[in-house]
Parts: sequence; structure tokens; C-alpha cells
Amino acid sequence: AEVNKLLSLKEKLGLEDGKQKFVLKTPKGTRDYGPRQMAIRERVFGIIIDTFKRHGAETIDTPVFELKETLTGKYGEDSKLIYDLENQGGELLSLRYDLTVPFARYLAMNKISNCKRYHIAKVYRRDNPAMTRGRYREFYQCDFDIAGVYDAMIPDAECLKIVHEILTGLQLGDFLIKVNDRRLLDGVFAACGVPSDKFRATCSAVDKLDKLPWEAVREELVGEKGLTLEMANSIAEYVCLHGGRDVIARLQADERLVGNSREMQDEQKSARAGLADLDLLFKYLDIMDISTQVQFDLSLARGLDYYTGAIFEATLLAPENAVHQDDGSAPGGVGSVAGGGRYDGLVGMFDARGRRVPCVGVSIGIERIFSILEQRSESHSVRTTETQVLVASAQKGLFDERLRLLKELWAAGIKGETSYRLSPKLLSQLQQAEQSGIPLVALLGTEELAAGTVRLRTVATRQEVEISRDKIVEEISKRS
Amino acid sequence: AEVNKLLSLKEKLGLEDGKQKFVLKTPKGTRDYGPRQMAIRERVFGIIIDTFKRHGAETIDTPVFELKETLTGKYGEDSKLIYDLENQGGELLSLRYDLTVPFARYLAMNKISNCKRYHIAKVYRRDNPAMTRGRYREFYQCDFDIAGVYDAMIPDAECLKIVHEILTGLQLGDFLIKVNDRRLLDGVFAACGVPSDKFRATCSAVDKLDKLPWEAVREELVGEKGLTLEMANSIAEYVCLHGGRDVIARLQADERLVGNSREMQDEQKSARAGLADLDLLFKYLDIMDISTQVQFDLSLARGLDYYTGAIFEATLLAPENAVHQDDGSAPGGVGSVAGGGRYDGLVGMFDARGRRVPCVGVSIGIERIFSILEQRSESHSVRTTETQVLVASAQKGLFDERLRLLKELWAAGIKGETSYRLSPKLLSQLQQAEQSGIPLVALLGTEELAAGTVRLRTVATRQEVEISRDKIVEEISKRS
Repeated sequence: AEVNKLLSLKEKLGLEDGKQKFVLKTPKGTRDYGPRQMAIRERVFGIIIDTFKRHGAETIDTPVFELKETLTGKYGEDSKLIYDLENQGGELLSLRYDLTVPFARYLAMNKISNCKRYHIAKVYRRDNPAMTRGRYREFYQCDFDIAGVYDAMIPDAECLKIVHEILTGLQLGDFLIKVNDRRLLDGVFAACGVPSDKFRATCSAVDKLDKLPWEAVREELVGEKGLTLEMANSIAEYVCLHGGRDVIARLQADERLVGNSREMQDEQKSARAGLADLDLLFKYLDIMDISTQVQFDLSLARGLDYYTGAIFEATLLAPENAVHQDDGSAPGGVGSVAGGGRYDGLVGMFDARGRRVPCVGVSIGIERIFSILEQRSESHSVRTTETQVLVASAQKGLFDERLRLLKELWAAGIKGETSYRLSPKLLSQLQQAEQSGIPLVALLGTEELAAGTVRLRTVATRQEVEISRDKIVEEISKRS
Repeated sequence: AEVNKLLSLKEKLGLEDGKQKFVLKTPKGTRDYGPRQMAIRERVFGIIIDTFKRHGAETIDTPVFELKETLTGKYGEDSKLIYDLENQGGELLSLRYDLTVPFARYLAMNKISNCKRYHIAKVYRRDNPAMTRGRYREFYQCDFDIAGVYDAMIPDAECLKIVHEILTGLQLGDFLIKVNDRRLLDGVFAACGVPSDKFRATCSAVDKLDKLPWEAVREELVGEKGLTLEMANSIAEYVCLHGGRDVIARLQADERLVGNSREMQDEQKSARAGLADLDLLFKYLDIMDISTQVQFDLSLARGLDYYTGAIFEATLLAPENAVHQDDGSAPGGVGSVAGGGRYDGLVGMFDARGRRVPCVGVSIGIERIFSILEQRSESHSVRTTETQVLVASAQKGLFDERLRLLKELWAAGIKGETSYRLSPKLLSQLQQAEQSGIPLVALLGTEELAAGTVRLRTVATRQEVEISRDKIVEEISKRS
């Protein structure tokens, strides 16, 4: 009767005559994670979470959707990529677009002024997916942020240290962390004669320098953004600068940038503050021995509007990690795998009294890392279970004995399995162990049962030893 | 300039004159998990995942939304509780309602016929929230399922063993797992004269017996569902039955239920099969020593339509875990914390050729368990970080030295923190250690620096020992 009901339900769904009338797929830009991908994902998350915990972070979680108005006005042009929920009566909701805005909402709502937390969760963007490059509409972010009023650049330096530890731990090859400062960028734009109402537009054009040649960016600056060619050329002189504390020192002596002109007082003060902070940052990076993999780069701009100070971005350098272009052209710039910066104004946007909570944080771009590690793992096998022992039987009719032994193994905390068939063939049981990488087989047979023993087989070597039935759990424990 | 931009953005959001014009909250029926809740959640998930892995399960993940048509026709009346996404052009999407339908979709889409997996993820229901009772619109499910053609009741018995191990491991007090079989229930309804087209409606009325007295259910059966009083009274005689294999044996001798009448051939055959399987299930439960906490209960019906065989549900018995009623009346039946059953037809609904993959699974109702453990933990402190040592300084100006030591600790895998201030007061540093439960403080001072030592303080006892600077990392490693 039940089956008939299901069959008639199936017909209603349009599955008549064995023809399927609906598409069996996951939504555009999303994917399932199978056991193999999950095993890789768990290993990656393990390394990342260990790092966050080593730095004393707590963790929080927030709902997958927020009130629509919570997200409004935070993402500039990108707002069109937000997923909205249907109005089914009640509140208007949207899926979260990142973890930073929900974090700021959480801090403001709970009036928290100090917090060091990580948050690993999926976010949603109705972007053009490029799944081979690890760009999805549903993807993970791994965020670490420090909120609170502290002395300059100490939390910022720890964020960079964390990125360094994670990328080292994941063994992704050489990498480079670029740093810059939004205040310094504004100072540069001012020094080049850009009017302040064009700073953000100029910034977002400069941000494209890692994907486009200077000529294209210059055209955007002059053509679209309305800068003069002179301004653009001046900017070019600055944004090609990169290096360490030597470059900072050179800029600190650049009168146009840090001098004391009356018209650019504010911007020059900002530039001085940005440079002083970057210098202090490098001092801390030196102490932590990571400054050789960090580069001051004036072309780094970062897309999001909410940054107010230091900004950073990590890229992989190893050519085998290069991003494959969708149009089939040569692999371009190697992918960015982490980014972040200081956003001192965001929490205040949620606070009734505009109370500010300075924040700095970093987000690990985990999907690209998954893509790289998945590709690498294709050539070798990845275990998807942790089973230590398969309880098998050599003859028919021994299921109850297998279950009895398994119960004892489970009680001892040993990870064990047995065939779900009453009388499986011995060969198929041994194959199951080999295929799933189970290292041990506990083999029950009528002879052994009569003798009060169990044969313990090491799958890799095919060696077997006979062990007393009442010592077998202990023996397997020892070997695990 | 950046600050001004944020302030102007804030104005646009309607935050003028320090007055907030939007509500700062999470969506209805949802909540943030703070660090304290997350610490509890991690402990619970740890126990559950360990159990799943001990039984050889892999894990998978699926997108948070599915094509709307994937969910259509799976949940009966409850479909109205599904969250739909707004049609922003492209596919019509809905948030997942449970993890079972996505699992069936995953199996059919990838043509997988054998799988033992767990899946821990949030699901979404536009239900009436009752947050104090742990009923949310966004909530976790922890599902374990076994798919494949296997010998009768072996996977089913393992599902019950897993529930038993998890509830024991979580130390929630006494519990009872009720079992029944959908085929047997259909046989009972037939034996009581209910026409087969009223089986599902009768089933869903009987399902309310754990919340309503028999009189109310009888009224629903007779008034709403159109049964005769005689049928209802016959049903009453059956659904009050509960016990172990003795009750199964009694029913196996019940001619009306299992006899060979021509009109009820199918139903009686189903009832016989159900009883035989339940008897076999108890045999396996006996072997695994868990049958005393499992009860055959003919009143158990389970809400969802897709079950086709064994069904089960676990409830906590300890009175302190009783569910508080929203209307303030006395705590009612103690809450169900796990449920599941066999659903042999669901995967076939997704398959173009109707290829069947029999499945059985169990879902742990984790939110109610969180509620109980959160209430219990209110009286004592819960650590939200794992920090082992706080690097502190007794005088001003020692930040660089603190950072240098911290770097060495991190490199040794030790979880360490230091104040983000250049010259924090000693007292405030010691308070930080005490408040966050950090067991050790490594104290740097000008005298010790000159002598090449560090003072290591045990926070609990306030004892301090002086240790050579070049041995301090090793010493802290030893104590952790």
C-alpha cells in the first residue's frame, strides 16, 4: 500500500512512462560535497581552526539569513548579488553575503566592545559562477576578526601572522601577503590632484590592477571616472611602488604626499598616519620573522567600501596553482586566497548612538584552496572513513557472532564495521576492507570459534595471527 | 574622508540624530550562537560525530537550497512551511526542509546504490517558533542513514544502537527508544476495518497520541477522518499495546491481524512481515545489550509520509528534561530527541527509471539537547577558548619581548595570547587570565629579562617559579 502511494506520488511529479520531467541537479553555482571532498574539507578546516584556537579565538555562529535591511547599504554595487527570500508574510529576509556584516550586527546588537572570534560558514552571492576556478554561488568563508580599542597595529599584525601560519600549514607552496593602507591611498590620490569625491571610484579602478594592465586601468580612470591624464600618470608613479620598510621611508620623505599644504591637510595627515602604522606593522612582522613574505604594495586597493586603514591580500606564487581562465587564455595572475583589513566604522553603522568598535580581520578564501587540494589529491586515494577494523566471517551463519564482537569493539571506542549481509562471501569482505582502506580484519570462523580464537589480519601485508577471543579487543586497541 | 563617507551612509540608512530607525535583531525564530553556546555545541557535535565515525560513516554536504521542484510532493501538509527564495531570474529555489530529501536526491543524481553517511547541517521551517523549548525556524539536524540492499533489520538495528550510544554519551539521563513498523500499523488499521484510503489520515491522527489523550484522538478519528466509533475503539485496543518480544508474539497469534482472510490478504501479509522484522530487530538489540531501553509501541506512528517499514523515536525520561509548555501548563510528555525509520521508496521518486534504493536512518534532534545542556551549564562556567598561556609583562615597554616569546610558543603549537596594549597593567593581565580560565601566565619583567629568566605562574594556585628563558617553551609544553 505504501509503495503504491509512493508510485502514485511519483506520477504526480511527472515521472510517467519512465521519463523524468524534472531536472535532477543542484541549483546553479552550487555543488554537493561527496565523502572525498568532505575528507579534504575536514583536513583543511582542522588546520585553520587549530590556528585560530592557537591565537585564543572564540567562535560564534549567526543565522544564514538576516533582515534585508541589515545588509542594505553595506556592499555598494555588489548589493545586486544578494539573494532575497520570497515575501511569504512576515519579515523581509536575505541570505548573508559575507560574515563581516553579521559580525558587526552581532557586536552592536549585544553591545560587545571586545571580541576575538572566528566564524566558518557558507555565504551566498548571485554572481557568475566559475566552478573550475573555485567560484561558487554558495561558498565557505573562514573569518577571523579582532574587535576592540587596542594599541596600533598589534591586532593587525596578528591577523597577518595567522594568514602566514595557515598558508604554511596547508603546504600550498610559496605565497606573498601584500599590505597597504586606505588612508595612504587617499593621500596618494589627493597628492595626484584627484578630488576627494572621486577617491572611492579611483580606488575601485586601481583595485583591478591585479587583473588588468595599467593601460586598461588608465583608460578607466580617464574615460569613465573623469580623471585627467596627468592625474592618472601621477597615480601610475605611485602604484607601481612595492617593497618593504625602505619604500615606506621613501614615501615618508615625499613632500607632495606627507607635507603640510593647507588644501590637503586632512589627506596628508591620513597619509602620514597610514605610513607610520605600516612602518609599525613591519616592525612587528620582523619580530615574528614573517616580514620576508609580506610586501608593501601601493597598488593593493581591495574592493569593499568599509575598510578604513590597513588592508591585505595573500596570493599563491607557485605556478601550478595559477588560475585557469574561463576563456581558455593563458593562466593569469595566481589566485588570491586570503584578504582583509581594518574596518573601524562598520559596527557604528548598526549602533543607535553610533558608538564605534574598531575591528580588523581576515577572511580565508577556502574554495580556491579546496580546488587546488582536490586537484592534487586526484592521483592518490583519500580515505573517507576512519574505520579501524572490519569484522568478517569465513563461513555462513556467523552474523550473530560478528555482531557480538562488534559490540565489544564499539564499547572499547574502536571504530568497527561488519557486512550488512547475513552470509557474505569472504572475498567480498576482504575486498571491502582493501577498497575502503580499513587496516585490520577480525576474521571469525567455525574452527576458531570452537577453539575460542579470532584470526586478526593486517590488510596491507595479508599476515594473519590467531588471537584468543577474550584478548582480541585489547589487541585491536593496542594496534590502533 | 572614509569616516565621513560612513557617516553619510549611516544617515542614508535613517540613523539621523542618534535615533535608529531599523530594528537590530535576528530574523524571527532564529538566534545567534555566542561563544558559550558554541562551546556546548562543539562538545555535543564531537560526541555525535565520534559515534557516527565509530560506525564507519562517511560524511557529505549539500547546498542549503534546492530546486523548488526537488522538495515538491515530499512533505504532505508541511509543504506550506518551506521557505522559498525570491524569483530574481533563473531557477526557483527553496531552503532545505530536512536532510533526508537532499540525501535521496544526491543518491539518485549520482546513481549511488550503497552509502552510509552522516550529515550535520541546518534546515529551515516557517513553523511557529517556541524558542524556550528549542523549536526554531533555523535548526540543526544530525542525520545518519544507511542506503543499500541488505539483509533485513541489520542496518535498522545499527541505527538504534547509534541513538543509544549518543544519548548515553551525552549523559542526558534515562531514555526510551520506541519502535514500531508502518506495515504493521497498516495491518492494524485494516484489521479494525479502516478502508485503505484512510490509512495515512488515521496514522497522522494516531501520531498525536504522545501529545493528546485518547479521547481527543478518537474524536479526530470519528469526527474529522470519518471512521466509525467501532473502528476507533478497535484501534484503541491495539495502540495501547507496548512491550517487548512478548507483545510481538501475542500479535503474531492474532488471527484478525495476521490470518489469511481473502479481503485483507495484502495487509495481513504486511503485518506478518512487520512483526517478523520487529522480532528480528529485538534479537539484534538483545545481542547488543540495548533491548531494555527499547520498547515496541503500537501507538508510535511518526508524522512524515515517506516511511515504509520500521520507525523509531527516542524520548528522555528524566523529569528535569520535561518540555515546558508555552501556555504555562504543567510540563507535558518529555521531549522526543531522536527519530527515524525506513524509507525504501524515496530515492526511486528521483530516479528516471524508478530504481529503488532502500534506506533507513535516524535524525538526532539536537536543538532540544542544546536547550537542556545550556540550562544545565548556566550554573557553572564554560571555557570559550583553549588558550594555555597568557604572556604578560610586569613593567611598561616590554611588548616586543612579549611578542617574541609568543612567536616561539605558537611555533611550538602552544595556544597563547598577550594583551593587545603596549603597556597594560599587571593586575588587568592577571584578571584576564583568571576570567578566561587560562591556566598559565608567563610573566616577563625587567629584572628577569636581565637575569635571562621568565616567571611562570599557575593561575589556580598563584604559585610562581622562575625558569630560564631558553627553557620556558619546553616547560610550558610539558605542562599542557
